[in-house]
Amino acid sequence: MASTGVPLEARAQARADMARARSRTSFDIVPVRHWLHGDAEAWENHAQLVRIVSHEAVVNLPGRPFMSREERYANGQAIINRFNELRIQNQWSDEQLERALLVTGQILPSSLHATAFQPVILRQGSDEQIRLWGPAISARAIIGCYAQTELGHGTDVAALETTATFDPKTDEFVLHSPTLTSTKWWIGGLGRTATHAVVQAQLHLQGKALGPHLFFVQLRSLEDHSTLPGRTIGDIGPKALGAHQAVDHGFLRFDSVRIPRFNMLSKFAKVTREGQYVQPPHAKLVYGGMLYIRAQMNHHAVWLLGKAITISIRYCTIRRQGKVGADGLAPQVISYPSTYYRLLPILANAYVFNAIAHHLHAEYEAMSALLARGDASLLPEVHIALAAMKVLVSTDALAGLDIARRAMGGHGFSEFAGGGRLLADHTPAVTYEGDNYVLDKQVVRAAVKGHQMGVQLPAESLSVFAFLGQLAAPMSAPVSARDLAQTLRYRAANVVKNFAQLKDSTQDPGAEARVSRAVGDAYVAGIAANALEQGLPGGEPVHRLFLLHLLTTVESALADLPNVDSRALRAHIGAACADILPDAIGLTDAFGFTDWELDSALGVYDGAVYDALWERASKSGFNAASPHEKEYKAHIMAILERGRKEVARL
Amino acid sequence: MASTGVPLEARAQARADMARARSRTSFDIVPVRHWLHGDAEAWENHAQLVRIVSHEAVVNLPGRPFMSREERYANGQAIINRFNELRIQNQWSDEQLERALLVTGQILPSSLHATAFQPVILRQGSDEQIRLWGPAISARAIIGCYAQTELGHGTDVAALETTATFDPKTDEFVLHSPTLTSTKWWIGGLGRTATHAVVQAQLHLQGKALGPHLFFVQLRSLEDHSTLPGRTIGDIGPKALGAHQAVDHGFLRFDSVRIPRFNMLSKFAKVTREGQYVQPPHAKLVYGGMLYIRAQMNHHAVWLLGKAITISIRYCTIRRQGKVGADGLAPQVISYPSTYYRLLPILANAYVFNAIAHHLHAEYEAMSALLARGDASLLPEVHIALAAMKVLVSTDALAGLDIARRAMGGHGFSEFAGGGRLLADHTPAVTYEGDNYVLDKQVVRAAVKGHQMGVQLPAESLSVFAFLGQLAAPMSAPVSARDLAQTLRYRAANVVKNFAQLKDSTQDPGAEARVSRAVGDAYVAGIAANALEQGLPGGEPVHRLFLLHLLTTVESALADLPNVDSRALRAHIGAACADILPDAIGLTDAFGFTDWELDSALGVYDGAVYDALWERASKSGFNAASPHEKEYKAHIMAILERGRKEVARL
Ligand SMILES: Cc1cc2nc3c(=O)[nH]c(=O)nc-3n(C[C@H](O)[C@H](O)[C@H](O)COP(=O)(O)OP(=O)(O)OC[C@H]3O[C@@H](n4cnc5c(N)ncnc54)[C@H](O)[C@@H]3O)c2cc1C
Ligand SMILES: Cc1cc2nc3c(=O)[nH]c(=O)nc-3n(C[C@H](O)[C@H](O)[C@H](O)COP(=O)(O)OP(=O)(O)OC[C@H]3O[C@@H](n4cnc5c(N)ncnc54)[C@H](O)[C@@H]3O)c2cc1C
Repeated sequence: MASTGVPLEARAQARADMARARSRTSFDIVPVRHWLHGDAEAWENHAQLVRIVSHEAVVNLPGRPFMSREERYANGQAIINRFNELRIQNQWSDEQLERALLVTGQILPSSLHATAFQPVILRQGSDEQIRLWGPAISARAIIGCYAQTELGHGTDVAALETTATFDPKTDEFVLHSPTLTSTKWWIGGLGRTATHAVVQAQLHLQGKALGPHLFFVQLRSLEDHSTLPGRTIGDIGPKALGAHQAVDHGFLRFDSVRIPRFNMLSKFAKVTREGQYVQPPHAKLVYGGMLYIRAQMNHHAVWLLGKAITISIRYCTIRRQGKVGADGLAPQVISYPSTYYRLLPILANAYVFNAIAHHLHAEYEAMSALLARGDASLLPEVHIALAAMKVLVSTDALAGLDIARRAMGGHGFSEFAGGGRLLADHTPAVTYEGDNYVLDKQVVRAAVKGHQMGVQLPAESLSVFAFLGQLAAPMSAPVSARDLAQTLRYRAANVVKNFAQLKDSTQDPGAEARVSRAVGDAYVAGIAANALEQGLPGGEPVHRLFLLHLLTTVESALADLPNVDSRALRAHIGAACADILPDAIGLTDAFGFTDWELDSALGVYDGAVYDALWERASKSGFNAASPHEKEYKAHIMAILERGRKEVARL
Repeated sequence: MASTGVPLEARAQARADMARARSRTSFDIVPVRHWLHGDAEAWENHAQLVRIVSHEAVVNLPGRPFMSREERYANGQAIINRFNELRIQNQWSDEQLERALLVTGQILPSSLHATAFQPVILRQGSDEQIRLWGPAISARAIIGCYAQTELGHGTDVAALETTATFDPKTDEFVLHSPTLTSTKWWIGGLGRTATHAVVQAQLHLQGKALGPHLFFVQLRSLEDHSTLPGRTIGDIGPKALGAHQAVDHGFLRFDSVRIPRFNMLSKFAKVTREGQYVQPPHAKLVYGGMLYIRAQMNHHAVWLLGKAITISIRYCTIRRQGKVGADGLAPQVISYPSTYYRLLPILANAYVFNAIAHHLHAEYEAMSALLARGDASLLPEVHIALAAMKVLVSTDALAGLDIARRAMGGHGFSEFAGGGRLLADHTPAVTYEGDNYVLDKQVVRAAVKGHQMGVQLPAESLSVFAFLGQLAAPMSAPVSARDLAQTLRYRAANVVKNFAQLKDSTQDPGAEARVSRAVGDAYVAGIAANALEQGLPGGEPVHRLFLLHLLTTVESALADLPNVDSRALRAHIGAACADILPDAIGLTDAFGFTDWELDSALGVYDGAVYDALWERASKSGFNAASPHEKEYKAHIMAILERGRKEVARL
């Protein structure tokens, strides 16, 4: 297009740039899209849901920035209400309903009903409890939340203060909040919505404290939604960064609330009519079920990263800025090494994390199947792999969302860009489901234990412990996926060995995060290298992305790898980036996001970014005439008049 | 307190922990406070302003999270209006007014009146122009904005499309926006407020384009604030992360708007009555004035970091979580190495950046004084030092704000914590006043040029180029400030040398940011080491903070320093942290923030965090009864009823 020598107007040039970049795609995106979504059927299901959901007037994505918190909450409830109707109309399963809600790309008031309340009851309730409560939960005849965290206690579940004291006289538990800090806090969906909760409370039997247990507690009337006696409930207030606006995270206090003995979730531990405690058969079994959300989180991170990087790469493809070249045009900003070096590794992460998410999902399922037969043999491996990946994926996704947003310059700071929203919503993922710094310690402890026990697995076992003992000095210029992965296993083995030699972590206070990262990097590298060897859909471009991930991971580990030739490594990174660049648009198109899903003025499929920004800005409610006049009369006029008088006095 | 053996209730324990931590302060905070503020007088002025301003009802800091964007904007105007009144009452100078507005800790609708509009006119206007417009600007009889960026052009000022064509017939310039992408965009205070703008536009004289020049343009009527003919003005919409809500960033299009020839800012370039262009005597002089905001930004970053780290260290001092120890209490989370390793380096950065800000401020003043005499000899040094520090300080401040917020776990994600607000407001600082990645290239270019010219300065010269030629291999275990700084100069010299040997940056696409960082680190280290040798107020604790900064900077550079013994270095970091820890509260108290200024439930001076969170949450407007019922009736009731019917059908 530029070949006529006459530069197009910038907005036309933008469309032309996007079309040209897309036309350079060298691979078939269909199999890649299927791989990203799981398989062809999963993709079809997703696309079908998007078609249905995007036509629902209640899902007003571009309207979100103009809604107050009240309105966001009300809209969230309206969406859930409508989608429940759609569930019945379309005969969706529970899982399909969840996916449909996910497709709206926002965190809804009672999202924890399906992701925490329901799974906990299904996994920890007795058969009788599930029979009694299950149908109402499925049908949403009751709406639940998961009430564990307290004002004073999050990470430290053992220290929860809420008590559940058995009263043998009435065959009831008495739930009580003895202190201010025992107030349940941060409970999603509690503030205004939930009719029921699963409550973690300290079980007291005959004066003895038996640690936290789970109780099924009604909070609000099913007649008129009024708060039941003895409960004090409220919303904990707005969240940082304008995030999670639609959610009514709540607080909850109990003033000697009585519930039937039956309401203690009792698949594992039980209390008899006489007030005797019946131990769970396998303590670990309780724990296994709790890992479900961590396995899910990896998938969510992939889709958030996918959205952010699609937006950013598209915008940087049409944005031109800098010294005009021979073609009479400023360069596309994606063409600057300092830009593509920021963006392509994020794209690579999204792809590699997809492989991780699918791998861990399968591992989790295998473990669950064994656990159901009372076999906990896979638990240690899966527990640590999930912990390491919870930390690594949530941390790198957050970093990637941030870098992708910043790469868009000023326009990236507009709410209309969409990148800020993705970043804000993902921000607490490094904190909930196990604070990352706390999980680091678990990963390090397991790694050091393995090291000290002399565990040695085949290096290519795909275990999170595969690095143990891989202490042979690495080559100076690793290039193949296999060698890069081995370099990262060496590095993990080495930093774990060094850590094990410390007297304590005060000697190296940053060590835990670094060691956990090394273990996680080695695990990801093993899976990535294996996937490369097995072959990936899309051929070369996808292979290069995986290789770029391995190369940049080794680059990030250079401080631990003094023998590696950094200059050669970086030249390989440069070459990999240059090879991937022409396919960057194709590789983001492969995610298959519609403009509706992205809801971004900068990420529009056709590259017409300037038109999209203009349209959103000129439609903005803030541009209405009347409120403006009000403020002028109230304040601006006074400022100007005061100024005029002052000037006149001079 | 804990010595009785009976643990206090957590909320009482929190106060006791704070009092105890404060009582352990080993140094006199008064001189440190003066140093942080500049001197005793600056501190007194600040404290006095806080006393006045905090009693103004219009400044409702805790109310902000509950205001809509409309309300935030209106409140911002009300603040400016009231403060203008206070200015007259208290006979504040322009600068005192600015400081008073700063003390409110928020970005106000027309903050660019004083930080861009006014300085640009004062620096680039002719004497006659300043005489004519200056008093009205000072008195705010007119309100201005700075309109440079366009929808299609930010970084690339040379490519701006707005034209200013001289019409010799009428002795006027005609301002015009020829395309959609030429629309002025992102202009702070323009959307609803400004009566005037300084506009960057391409000067066209007799058919010749002479590049961007500045024009003084009225936008709105001073009678009734209506938009003048030929201007199309609006607000560009909300910003990401809920940030800068009070600001009406605007767009502006010109449809052949005529302004008198007099309105081209003409201290430097001029256009004669005949339409002849008179060249500026020194092109560089124009540029010098533009560096003012960059020099200011370092100070702002220090105060933002100071607030964030005060909040975070205070909260982590009273927050207890984890295995109960011999004293019957869970550990304070600040006592975990993985926590203090995250927080103390941020505290160190705030202190060291304060030294940088004061140093650069003095350099800037010296340069300005010379420039005023037509001497541009200091410009290259100060320009590159300011560019390197714009990048380094804004980047590290943003990272520090993020780490400090995350360190507070779940409660850190509450808007009431305050950390999110600081982070969100600082976010665009890495983009405006020169996108950091673009500035990196300027720093690298200057460094490589110096290297190629064989420039060599005394290593301890405090110049941003002091590292050049410092290629003697570093010692393996640097410990003193002097040696640590020399290590960082060696590293800068080395990475610049390596970069200069590359064919081009595609061979190492991440190099520019890395090289710029190395140059910046060396510069900061030189100033920090020099300050340490000169002696700092507060004695040992402050010295240790500076040392910790140097140690952790070398740690972050280990990939470039394969000879440095990382284990020894980290042991020093551990020891420095352990030494600083007992003074952490004192070192944050030294900033002198009042609870009003911090506006944070987690950062309260007395440690009564849980009471503060409870109070803010229970007062939250979202807990009012009536809207809740509305949503229940509109949606929740329908969801539950549908569910009940479904269960009944089973
Ligand atoms: C958006 C959001 C939604 C949530 N939803 C729910 C919900 O629906 N239900 C629910 O029950 N909870 C919920 N939570 C709470 C969440 O589970 C906790 O915030 C999380 O477990 C972290 O605990 P904390 O907040 O107490 O952090 P803390 O444990 O207080 O962490 C504070 C700091 O101390 C450090 N630290 C703590 N312990 C240790 C240790 N042992 N060793 C080293 N360092 C340590 C941490 O790394 C962190 O830096 C939610 C939280 C958020 C932010
Ligand atoms: C909150 C806020 C307030 C603002 N206020 C004002 C105001 O009052 N008045 C005003 O005039 N402007 C204002 N701006 C605009 C601001 O000055 C620009 O956003 C800034 O200069 C960056 O330019 P850009 O947005 O065009 O980014 P771009 O230049 O488009 O940058 C996009 C990407 O391209 C990269 N890039 C661009 N050029 C190059 C290059 N040559 N080499 C390598 N990489 C490159 C960048 O690193 C970035 O990743 C404001 C912006 C914000 C966010």
